[in-house]
Amino acid sequence: MSEADLKEELPGAADDTAPEGMPESETLDEDNRLKPEFVRNVKEALDDEDSDRVYDLVEPLHPADIADLFELVDERERLTLARSIRDLMGVEVIAEMNDWVREALMEALPADVVAEIAGGLDTDDAVAMLEDLDEADQQAVLAEMEPEDRAAIESALSYPEESAGRMMSRDHVAVPETMTVGDLIDYLREHRELPTEFWEVFCVDPMHRPVGTCSLSWILRCPRNIPLYDVMARDQTLIPADMDQEEVALRFQKYALISAAVVDTSGRLIGQITVDDIVHIISEEAGEDALLLSGAGDGDINEPILLTVRARLTWLVVNLATAMLASSVVGLFQGAITRFALLAVLMPIVSGMGGNAGTQTLAVVVRAIATNQLTDSNTARMIWREFRIALTNGLALGVLIGTGTALVFGNPLLGAVIASAMLINNLVAGLAGILVPVTLDRFNVDPAVSSAVFVTTATDTMGFFTFLGLAVLTGLA
Amino acid sequence: MSEADLKEELPGAADDTAPEGMPESETLDEDNRLKPEFVRNVKEALDDEDSDRVYDLVEPLHPADIADLFELVDERERLTLARSIRDLMGVEVIAEMNDWVREALMEALPADVVAEIAGGLDTDDAVAMLEDLDEADQQAVLAEMEPEDRAAIESALSYPEESAGRMMSRDHVAVPETMTVGDLIDYLREHRELPTEFWEVFCVDPMHRPVGTCSLSWILRCPRNIPLYDVMARDQTLIPADMDQEEVALRFQKYALISAAVVDTSGRLIGQITVDDIVHIISEEAGEDALLLSGAGDGDINEPILLTVRARLTWLVVNLATAMLASSVVGLFQGAITRFALLAVLMPIVSGMGGNAGTQTLAVVVRAIATNQLTDSNTARMIWREFRIALTNGLALGVLIGTGTALVFGNPLLGAVIASAMLINNLVAGLAGILVPVTLDRFNVDPAVSSAVFVTTATDTMGFFTFLGLAVLTGLA
Repeated sequence: MSEADLKEELPGAADDTAPEGMPESETLDEDNRLKPEFVRNVKEALDDEDSDRVYDLVEPLHPADIADLFELVDERERLTLARSIRDLMGVEVIAEMNDWVREALMEALPADVVAEIAGGLDTDDAVAMLEDLDEADQQAVLAEMEPEDRAAIESALSYPEESAGRMMSRDHVAVPETMTVGDLIDYLREHRELPTEFWEVFCVDPMHRPVGTCSLSWILRCPRNIPLYDVMARDQTLIPADMDQEEVALRFQKYALISAAVVDTSGRLIGQITVDDIVHIISEEAGEDALLLSGAGDGDINEPILLTVRARLTWLVVNLATAMLASSVVGLFQGAITRFALLAVLMPIVSGMGGNAGTQTLAVVVRAIATNQLTDSNTARMIWREFRIALTNGLALGVLIGTGTALVFGNPLLGAVIASAMLINNLVAGLAGILVPVTLDRFNVDPAVSSAVFVTTATDTMGFFTFLGLAVLTGLA
Repeated sequence: MSEADLKEELPGAADDTAPEGMPESETLDEDNRLKPEFVRNVKEALDDEDSDRVYDLVEPLHPADIADLFELVDERERLTLARSIRDLMGVEVIAEMNDWVREALMEALPADVVAEIAGGLDTDDAVAMLEDLDEADQQAVLAEMEPEDRAAIESALSYPEESAGRMMSRDHVAVPETMTVGDLIDYLREHRELPTEFWEVFCVDPMHRPVGTCSLSWILRCPRNIPLYDVMARDQTLIPADMDQEEVALRFQKYALISAAVVDTSGRLIGQITVDDIVHIISEEAGEDALLLSGAGDGDINEPILLTVRARLTWLVVNLATAMLASSVVGLFQGAITRFALLAVLMPIVSGMGGNAGTQTLAVVVRAIATNQLTDSNTARMIWREFRIALTNGLALGVLIGTGTALVFGNPLLGAVIASAMLINNLVAGLAGILVPVTLDRFNVDPAVSSAVFVTTATDTMGFFTFLGLAVLTGLA
């Protein structure tokens, strides 16, 4: 390999732009987002169909910012933008682009152009790009690709969605453990087809099963004559290809991994996952719970609006049913309400506060389950913990609202009734907030998706029932 | 450096345990969590004060699992556990331990033992361990430490909480850009005091300001005579030491970084942050929004219960005020309710559904703001998007509940009133759900913390007001 070749291949060589992270950028604001003025300039140039001006504006941007730019311009401007900056649309731009934006763009482009782009990507990025296309478009693109790339992508697509097999990169460095450090360095220098960026070298046995991992920093610090089996860490985290990406993300976090070997069912090394692919997943999975709990579905602001409406409306209709159930509880007490309308004025306070307390517990418990902090070993202790919290909060809120009600309306019995109902509903909220998600989890139902409906139903119906029921029982109305 | 020395230093050498990630573990379940039976055995041994059995049980565990074990046993058992496995309490166990568990443990241990543990940690882990101790304990521990470690920790503590300066590691490899690849490899082999794990080498100018970054894989693949300025990437992301950790996490995600140079105000390299420190932050920051939106505070199940009660109760009392406001709106219509109690039965449906729709929008918008997806450039477009979603959902829900009400109660006017109120409240929910967080963000208030109160107040009061108001206006009651 000549030096000239190598210089061309290495990322550093061609790249002479100014360092990022500097405060005085013309395009980025202090939060490292593209400035509105800049985006406006690009949009004006797009409206004027002035491709050269668009190109000049976009050219100095980092690929990740170009990817962001696609999100920030209007949908109808995106294809024009892509056409104007055709030769800037490199691997990194495509890989960093929002899934929905990329999908729409890919559907608008002819199959051979998409195939050309996919051919230039790593397998994992190409799979991410193609997996959301519909079957016919996918086949059309695959038909245009080189047989080798095509085989790699088809093999990745054979693994379940969101599994390690889909997200792994086939490119990795695997060598026999009997190699010495010096031989490994020579091998790396001589083989151009190896990936340009990797962080660990995997040692394999003759069956290509991983037996150890060598961090590059150890290799660099060892004398050339040391064999790898003396350098490698044998204590590896192996990722089965069918493992769910959420599980993969948890392993990377737990064991602070930089990269990990992916193995097939017979234990052979078939690829690697690196931490830079994982950070997106960690962020997605951790942020997802807030969206799921609220019934906002995917929650991506670039999602096509009809899909968003369908996801949110489904959830709202389910909640409408539970709201009607709670309302029918109120219906049982119409007579009491006619006699004493103040009950109708105060009842939303009891149900609403129960809902708030339930949501708090739920958010905490769902997060603890997702991060493997809440397991069978400490569930009983945590139920007891939530009970004590609910009891304390219920007593405090009960005294507060009870005293206030008694004083404002000059009716101590009404105060006592609302105070008791508040306490009881807080206990209902706290217990439902932990028991519902824990039970769903035990039945392998994602607690983030379905817990909220049950908890809200419990706090609404019990809120109305205890308050109105106690009012009738005590002869208030 | 002799080979024997080196073998001892390298992590791989001493480590002969079985590979992880294998399914048939006696201690871990299929989700890679400690099995309840195993935890029960440890707890029994702790109760029996049988230190040797505790040690034998814990010894084969990975440090990250030992850290988890501390969370899973009861609070009163933790100190006994720590005493039983004293020499297993290494760097990784302490670093991986939950903050609250670690803090309680450190407070229970004498200052000199804590100082000894802190001395063995990387600066960033030692800072994480000490920063939560109260001032007096912190000073006592620092007084027991080696002057060099002490200075490093005090310097880190001088940066703001949750800043890059607190989380960076001072250990890094910095060399002049004029060095050749061969000289660098020799330098790395000869200098024992360098960190054992690093992923990139930073090139600096004579003022120690970073000018480029060399990935270890490029160094390994280059001939020895090439100077680093031909290999290094000049396009760096530099992290100012006072940057907030959330911002640091966003840069790592955006630019897919493995490590990054941290610089002081004069631009000199003072440390590095590596991606394994970031994954925890990414997960924490992304998961935090669900907790903040629900008013659950820190939301960690290991938080001392009094802090949890204080955080949640504060939020509930604020919500009690808004619930009373909404209730006072109902109070305006007591006469109408006395005349027509069915209004009180149906009104919670309108306010509740508005609350659900508002929460959906809020969850999506808060997430989009946190991930820099929603900026000034696309706010107007997103408000328009949420308006259309709210209009569609409001129409659908209005028709559904309106028709149902008209049929069930044989009262078409009541159906029309509830349908209109439902539509209006959905629009209120959708617009409040985006306008409130966007406005708070513009005033630099964290939208995850305070949005929910405003949105719920809007949907509750407007839900009651439109439904009851329309009922009176149309002469229903």
